[in-house]
Amino acid sequence: MSTVTVYSTRNCPYCRMAKVFLDKQGVRYTNIDVGVDAVAAEKMIALSGQRGVPVIMVDDEVIVGFDSKRLNELFGTHVSSETYDVVIVGAGPAGLTAAVYCARKLLKTLVVSESIGGQALESWAIENYMGYRMITGEDLMKKFEEQVRTLDVRLELDRVSSITPEENLFAVTTVSGITVKAKSLILTQGKQPRKLGVKDEEKYLGRGLSICSTCDGPLYKGKKVAVVGGGNSALQTAVEMSGIASSVSLIVRSTIKADPVYVRKLEGIKNITVHLHAQITALAGDPFLQYITITTEGQGDQRIEVDGVFIEVGWTPNTDILDGLVELNANKEIVVDIDGRTSRSGLFAAGDVTSVKSKQIIIAAGDGAKAALEAYEYLMKLD
Amino acid sequence: MSTVTVYSTRNCPYCRMAKVFLDKQGVRYTNIDVGVDAVAAEKMIALSGQRGVPVIMVDDEVIVGFDSKRLNELFGTHVSSETYDVVIVGAGPAGLTAAVYCARKLLKTLVVSESIGGQALESWAIENYMGYRMITGEDLMKKFEEQVRTLDVRLELDRVSSITPEENLFAVTTVSGITVKAKSLILTQGKQPRKLGVKDEEKYLGRGLSICSTCDGPLYKGKKVAVVGGGNSALQTAVEMSGIASSVSLIVRSTIKADPVYVRKLEGIKNITVHLHAQITALAGDPFLQYITITTEGQGDQRIEVDGVFIEVGWTPNTDILDGLVELNANKEIVVDIDGRTSRSGLFAAGDVTSVKSKQIIIAAGDGAKAALEAYEYLMKLD
Repeated sequence: MSTVTVYSTRNCPYCRMAKVFLDKQGVRYTNIDVGVDAVAAEKMIALSGQRGVPVIMVDDEVIVGFDSKRLNELFGTHVSSETYDVVIVGAGPAGLTAAVYCARKLLKTLVVSESIGGQALESWAIENYMGYRMITGEDLMKKFEEQVRTLDVRLELDRVSSITPEENLFAVTTVSGITVKAKSLILTQGKQPRKLGVKDEEKYLGRGLSICSTCDGPLYKGKKVAVVGGGNSALQTAVEMSGIASSVSLIVRSTIKADPVYVRKLEGIKNITVHLHAQITALAGDPFLQYITITTEGQGDQRIEVDGVFIEVGWTPNTDILDGLVELNANKEIVVDIDGRTSRSGLFAAGDVTSVKSKQIIIAAGDGAKAALEAYEYLMKLD
Repeated sequence: MSTVTVYSTRNCPYCRMAKVFLDKQGVRYTNIDVGVDAVAAEKMIALSGQRGVPVIMVDDEVIVGFDSKRLNELFGTHVSSETYDVVIVGAGPAGLTAAVYCARKLLKTLVVSESIGGQALESWAIENYMGYRMITGEDLMKKFEEQVRTLDVRLELDRVSSITPEENLFAVTTVSGITVKAKSLILTQGKQPRKLGVKDEEKYLGRGLSICSTCDGPLYKGKKVAVVGGGNSALQTAVEMSGIASSVSLIVRSTIKADPVYVRKLEGIKNITVHLHAQITALAGDPFLQYITITTEGQGDQRIEVDGVFIEVGWTPNTDILDGLVELNANKEIVVDIDGRTSRSGLFAAGDVTSVKSKQIIIAAGDGAKAALEAYEYLMKLD
């Protein structure tokens, strides 16, 4: 049997996912909290060559992040092909809500997603999900997940690699090799963080560049950080990191686009410096990020010493696998009608992956319910 | 000063509204819980000549139900005309969510509604609002309300009587005589229970006929009741009343349309009798309902002794005041596009009052957020 060690932090949803996956497959492992244990943190950084959690050691192999593909190869149990009424792709607010509605209609339902909670997991503090005056994204998504788990729904931590229409059915395959048939699908696979577009960006990911402040924030106690972006997420991250890091540089390409409530919070925090009309144009340091160059309109270049940079510059929808299958708009989002129908019969969609304008948890949840009820109606007519 | 007595039950949302209104106006009153005090219940029935709460005595005047118009006449304080960025009509899930989103955008916002919570208040047990595995409609709406009350939003318990377009603005008046100007409106005034269409229906309302089982259920302990309808609400009410009343007749016009989960719950409850393809064709008793006649397809008439009948046969949208103002569909629902826009610029809508197919709390909340964000965009372009 393999010796497995998981290096994690307490509030990192991907760490939790990794551990849930290992638990489910019956894999024994040692868990080390590198948010508390500074010595272990250094060891993890030395082993993995990067600063970011989770890191999973399987004997001598280093797995960086919650790499569901590799973990499935090592520990996954393949299942025989089955036919489902509905396969839900993604398990963020839209997917989990759709799952609850499908299960309550007694549909045979499979949810396939790399993580449970989707991008909602990254929110420090949600104040506009109705029913909770203030809740973290992770806590809210745990509640969504618990609600799904009380019902008869199969949930697979995996990634869909292809969807192929066959007569009256769809064949769905995953990266770990599961193949199932689906009478209908609900696409809720969300979006992923956009990149900076700077040289050496890939090299520094996990070595100072982070796309998950909720995960990696605790590793930057007393350090200097920058946050890139001018929207709600960027401002939230800047405010939160100002309490952890010694200083925060907020780098905004044009002007701040966040809601006034976030702007108000930002004002008066002394260790945050805001750079407007500014972009990161170079990254430096070896092996870890140590300096960034900021180019400000009309002011030229400026070199700043930082230990970490959190990227919060927006998102691109996860629609690569859908090319040619359903109509996408210019932003590569799935075009849906008011009921969550796509251009192809039997395929429904909801949440951040769709053409719906506003990306909000409560909107994704509402539209997840719509898509599920529409899929139910479709299936009733099919039988 | 008037002597005011409120006869109420503990779980009746309209009783709570009435008390909130009186508290807000600084009116002193005596509250009597007729769910506990059987002698007071008899006195209330004698005074009001009907079995239903709340009943409010103001000196010698008997006010039946939460009659916001009459209470405003007696105790309301008129306010001067003001201009709001947004007036939200209705305070159910859609309206309250819209209020939170408007307030977070720092819009000057007024909510006008006869009740806080809307039809959601009538749900005994909600299992499909994400974030709560099980919650009563009243508890969930209290949470929504608390969330609104933390923000800078004016909330008036009143009813909008007219909306008149003026150049770039709308004049909004209420039954209690408030007049304000609105740059935009979000219409979320929901729907109201449909009637049976039986002779003497009006006469027996509150005298055995009830449209709010959450309110009046406790008054039927150990008594014989009937529930009319075959949808989720009807089945939920039948199941709940089976634990309070001695017997429940469920009268379904055609077949049961409720979700399978409710059908399962119904099965095995011994004191529920289901009548399919049946309708109530006559009501009898003096002064209180005592008998109903059921006509069943192919089986003729049957007289049943009952103390109470709960009507759960669907809804009609509250769109009377909108005639000629915005496009309505054949069901008199406000036609909206995917962003919550109506046919008239500056007017937005969400929730059960709209043409959106499924009437669900989570859908109304999501669409309330959409309408608010769309109104915000409209106002930004206006300035």
